[in-house]
Amino acid sequence: MTDITTVAVLGTGVLGSQIAFQTAYSGFAVTAYDISDDALAAARERFARLAATYRAEVPGAAEDGKADLALMRLTLTTDLSVAAQADLVIEAVPEVLDLKRDVYIKLGELAPEKTIFATNSSTLLPSDMVEFTGRPDRFLALHFANRVWKFNTAEVMGTTHTDPAVFATVQEFATEIGMVPIAIHKEKAGYVLNSLLVPLLNAGMGLAAGGYASVEDIDKTWRIATGAPLGPLQILDVIGLTTPYNILTHSSTGDEKLATWLKETYIDQGKLGVATGEGFYKYA
Amino acid sequence: MTDITTVAVLGTGVLGSQIAFQTAYSGFAVTAYDISDDALAAARERFARLAATYRAEVPGAAEDGKADLALMRLTLTTDLSVAAQADLVIEAVPEVLDLKRDVYIKLGELAPEKTIFATNSSTLLPSDMVEFTGRPDRFLALHFANRVWKFNTAEVMGTTHTDPAVFATVQEFATEIGMVPIAIHKEKAGYVLNSLLVPLLNAGMGLAAGGYASVEDIDKTWRIATGAPLGPLQILDVIGLTTPYNILTHSSTGDEKLATWLKETYIDQGKLGVATGEGFYKYA
Repeated sequence: MTDITTVAVLGTGVLGSQIAFQTAYSGFAVTAYDISDDALAAARERFARLAATYRAEVPGAAEDGKADLALMRLTLTTDLSVAAQADLVIEAVPEVLDLKRDVYIKLGELAPEKTIFATNSSTLLPSDMVEFTGRPDRFLALHFANRVWKFNTAEVMGTTHTDPAVFATVQEFATEIGMVPIAIHKEKAGYVLNSLLVPLLNAGMGLAAGGYASVEDIDKTWRIATGAPLGPLQILDVIGLTTPYNILTHSSTGDEKLATWLKETYIDQGKLGVATGEGFYKYA
Repeated sequence: MTDITTVAVLGTGVLGSQIAFQTAYSGFAVTAYDISDDALAAARERFARLAATYRAEVPGAAEDGKADLALMRLTLTTDLSVAAQADLVIEAVPEVLDLKRDVYIKLGELAPEKTIFATNSSTLLPSDMVEFTGRPDRFLALHFANRVWKFNTAEVMGTTHTDPAVFATVQEFATEIGMVPIAIHKEKAGYVLNSLLVPLLNAGMGLAAGGYASVEDIDKTWRIATGAPLGPLQILDVIGLTTPYNILTHSSTGDEKLATWLKETYIDQGKLGVATGEGFYKYA
């Protein structure tokens, strides 16, 4: 058992709300913070939808009333000083460094010294933010994947300043909320998951964009050869095509030609993946 | 149905013997050619082992005596002029351009005009060999994956000279022998499968080599996130580590640092993967 009994999640977007719900579902008292009453109203709807999803997809969530109990363990607030009282604060605010900086500076002043801060950022490294936190030894990344109840990796990645005991505590906390902690020993853009996934997805898009093979044949080859349930272009449709587009237009790892192809052939046609009913494939 | 009724396979190594056996298993009369009586003796043992593997792993192979029938449809020869009489000749000789050239020049002289030649080469493109065949319109690549009875993709890839009707015939033939044909419309080194697989495997090795995460955590992340049965380092152990080493030391797509790490940490220690009992993992 860790010393963590209360948790706050800053930001109630797609992943923030999932992290908050999963943590509450695992028995913790959770404060979900967002910046406005409108944002909290949207959060309430997200949490209600998540409860329904858990009842449908997570064994025990319906029968044991566990999803209802999770809802009752969630407190919503627009007061950062309330959220700052938790033992662990997980930050899931939008991926804009200026926003994160403001949040960490305020949070660092409001929170007790012992509070651990964890960022869920996908695109920033913890060392990009550590100086704003006022507690370099108690700050690290705890990175979740979309649909946390199913894709339950929690990548734990510190900076060179992170106290190893804090790293271990957060790993253990991740296990307590039903995640599989993945320890990353040195900072790495993309963590483990995206470092593996992006090259495969780019290769899949490259084959399609180059006209080498059909979308169906590319995915079929992958499924047969590796036993995976989805090929790269099917995975992209699930993720949604704007995320890879943003990665492809990113200067350091980008591929402008592939980005243009993706934009013109799919995104500009409103084909964004499963969510819009069509991407590389059509969905009913 | 295609016009193909007899098939020859040149080269009875790991993949050549599998192609010959699978084709015979599917009802075709197959001539398996190799260069010496010693090679044919080794081929006989490979075919006997394949029959046992099929009986164990392929539904119906034992009960219906299908594996025995396959053995009876195989004729072994060191006489290229016998092999050259088949409707389709699949070349699976070692990946050395000089060897392939000699074989194609001789074969082109011995075979009737109508005979289709297909290369199983992984590392050479059909256009590297087309000039030796004397029949550019009836030559293409038909590329199998190791353990053809399970990983049953057959990548079909022509040159700009390949007759579309021949391409279609070979696709259909691939289906007739239980393969899933993957049509590749333009020449591509690595075909579809290795164009997808190599970036993932290199990314997995890069994470391990850089000390970012443990071998176990890298693979675990992949399995959880994608639902695949094996992570990249597990796949490498199955393939065997000398193949990726050869790819990494290849000038155009290589990564010398990663190659050195793989060699010093694994290959030089005799850790070549599942086949030697140890690679990234230990095997009982």
